[in-house]
Amino acid sequence: MISKEIHLKSRPTGLPAAANFTMVEREIGEPGAGEILIQNHYMSVDPYMRGRMAMAWPLDEVMIGGALGKVVTSNNPNFQVGDYVTHGLGWREYAISNGEGVNQIDPELAPLSAYLGVMGMPGLTAYGGLLVTGEYKPGETVFVSAASGAVGSIVGQIAKIHGSSVIGSAGSDDKVEMLKASLGFDHAFNYKTADPLAELRKAAPKGIDIYFENVGGPQLEAALTHMRPYGRIPICGMISTYNDGATATPGPRNLTETIYKHITLKGFVVSAFVDQQAQFLTDMSRWIKSGEVKYNETIFDGIDNAVTAFEGLFQGANNGKMLVKLVSE
Amino acid sequence: MISKEIHLKSRPTGLPAAANFTMVEREIGEPGAGEILIQNHYMSVDPYMRGRMAMAWPLDEVMIGGALGKVVTSNNPNFQVGDYVTHGLGWREYAISNGEGVNQIDPELAPLSAYLGVMGMPGLTAYGGLLVTGEYKPGETVFVSAASGAVGSIVGQIAKIHGSSVIGSAGSDDKVEMLKASLGFDHAFNYKTADPLAELRKAAPKGIDIYFENVGGPQLEAALTHMRPYGRIPICGMISTYNDGATATPGPRNLTETIYKHITLKGFVVSAFVDQQAQFLTDMSRWIKSGEVKYNETIFDGIDNAVTAFEGLFQGANNGKMLVKLVSE
Repeated sequence: MISKEIHLKSRPTGLPAAANFTMVEREIGEPGAGEILIQNHYMSVDPYMRGRMAMAWPLDEVMIGGALGKVVTSNNPNFQVGDYVTHGLGWREYAISNGEGVNQIDPELAPLSAYLGVMGMPGLTAYGGLLVTGEYKPGETVFVSAASGAVGSIVGQIAKIHGSSVIGSAGSDDKVEMLKASLGFDHAFNYKTADPLAELRKAAPKGIDIYFENVGGPQLEAALTHMRPYGRIPICGMISTYNDGATATPGPRNLTETIYKHITLKGFVVSAFVDQQAQFLTDMSRWIKSGEVKYNETIFDGIDNAVTAFEGLFQGANNGKMLVKLVSE
Repeated sequence: MISKEIHLKSRPTGLPAAANFTMVEREIGEPGAGEILIQNHYMSVDPYMRGRMAMAWPLDEVMIGGALGKVVTSNNPNFQVGDYVTHGLGWREYAISNGEGVNQIDPELAPLSAYLGVMGMPGLTAYGGLLVTGEYKPGETVFVSAASGAVGSIVGQIAKIHGSSVIGSAGSDDKVEMLKASLGFDHAFNYKTADPLAELRKAAPKGIDIYFENVGGPQLEAALTHMRPYGRIPICGMISTYNDGATATPGPRNLTETIYKHITLKGFVVSAFVDQQAQFLTDMSRWIKSGEVKYNETIFDGIDNAVTAFEGLFQGANNGKMLVKLVSE
């Protein structure tokens, strides 16, 4: 059987481009003893992948990344044919695994695709980044950048559930409108046309307690200036800097704001929240069912469009979670 | 009786200069009911004062700041004539107070001047910044900038007492030599002539766990790059940026290092460590007596030289704590 997969061919120096990737068709054999064969239904397209491409990931091998599929052959007693699973085996149509790092999911609890988004890595990133790293306390004023993205949109809604005033930024007027009209943000602005500091001052005259950092640049500077004492800045990402190449964007000129205001900046990745995973699934599935958390998806069809989807992440093409769908359900 | 005092006349825009200050001679009356008259012996000269001058402190009034003096008249039952006290009543020869914020010190435990340095604010800043804000664990590798200063020199020695490998930077070869020969630093370098990242790599091939930040600029960038996972950066000061004026120095271009390494940056001021004060005095007086902590002082004579001393802070004129002495003992 033939499986298409996408390889990393060269490391991007600025914006990732089609030339950095190759499509490879590979003959997939039968799974061996203890192994399973997974047919992927969805592949995950995430900003963090840009950083990993620059350094960590091997060239001329399949792109690492999250995916969701169905077990179609099983020689492993822990998996049944028909099980739906998530895994990190990357951008390919079929994958063989011994089961390590492969996790069954419950398709009754939420739609399949949600397990790569709101019920998966981005959802747990938002949940842990706000509640654990951000040491969020109910009612605090929260600002989140890239607020229409897979992580940012969930951060804002979790804070709203707990009684916060929430401010979000996004890169188009349509997204700004969606944040206010659909996701219940108290204030939202277009960071490409508005002055972030002026927006924060207008939306939160008494200052902000948490800035959930996805973007970097002028928004981080504005957040530092307008932050209240003992404020926290969980650093989830800085997408504005990922494609800098040789000339890196300077950091905030006002880090001294941290001193008298006792501000904490703290970087994190989702692996920090293993202990919160079970509670997260319980909470999030309840919030989705009650309608307290809504989520958007931007879905590209077919593995041939995966690179286009990835490029789109850096051009604001996604509204919520970016996915590639491989199999029609 | 005439008391000389120094007023803040205008806010410095770059390096502070003599023109920003005025010497005023004021007739000091007798202390009223419940009040005491203090004759100052030492005035404290500290980098943090630069930031407060820019914004917070009133013009045409006495410069706020730490001082140490002797009670010469007392109408307050809590103070006896002859008591030595520290207070924050600023740069003047005599001060009248109702006793609020005035604290007796024990001249038997350490020399008088030490209570403005190693036994006072800078000492507690070092102690709390490393142990509390920095969440220091014995044996961790510590890098401290401005390591020959009043705070940095104590940070390094506290870490040495607890078994750390300690790296310090300073602004002259003489200071670098002093750090190694006199204070026991494992490695030290001149940040004006050496490349901080190369120095860190040489001195700590496995990375650093804590960077105690006093300076900002390229040293912060180097520390982020060479920091180990879960490293911490207590931000005590950024003296390299204090005199920036209108064009602020850009921040570190590599804040994304925080993400995968789960690095924390945390600003603080000494007021955070009220709860540690008693333990600090016990520990520090013991370390001074045992010789485990040494301290340097740079002392200018007479209130007429206070502004020169302050200017000198930004020119590297001090070795350890900068003081002005008003009374010969």
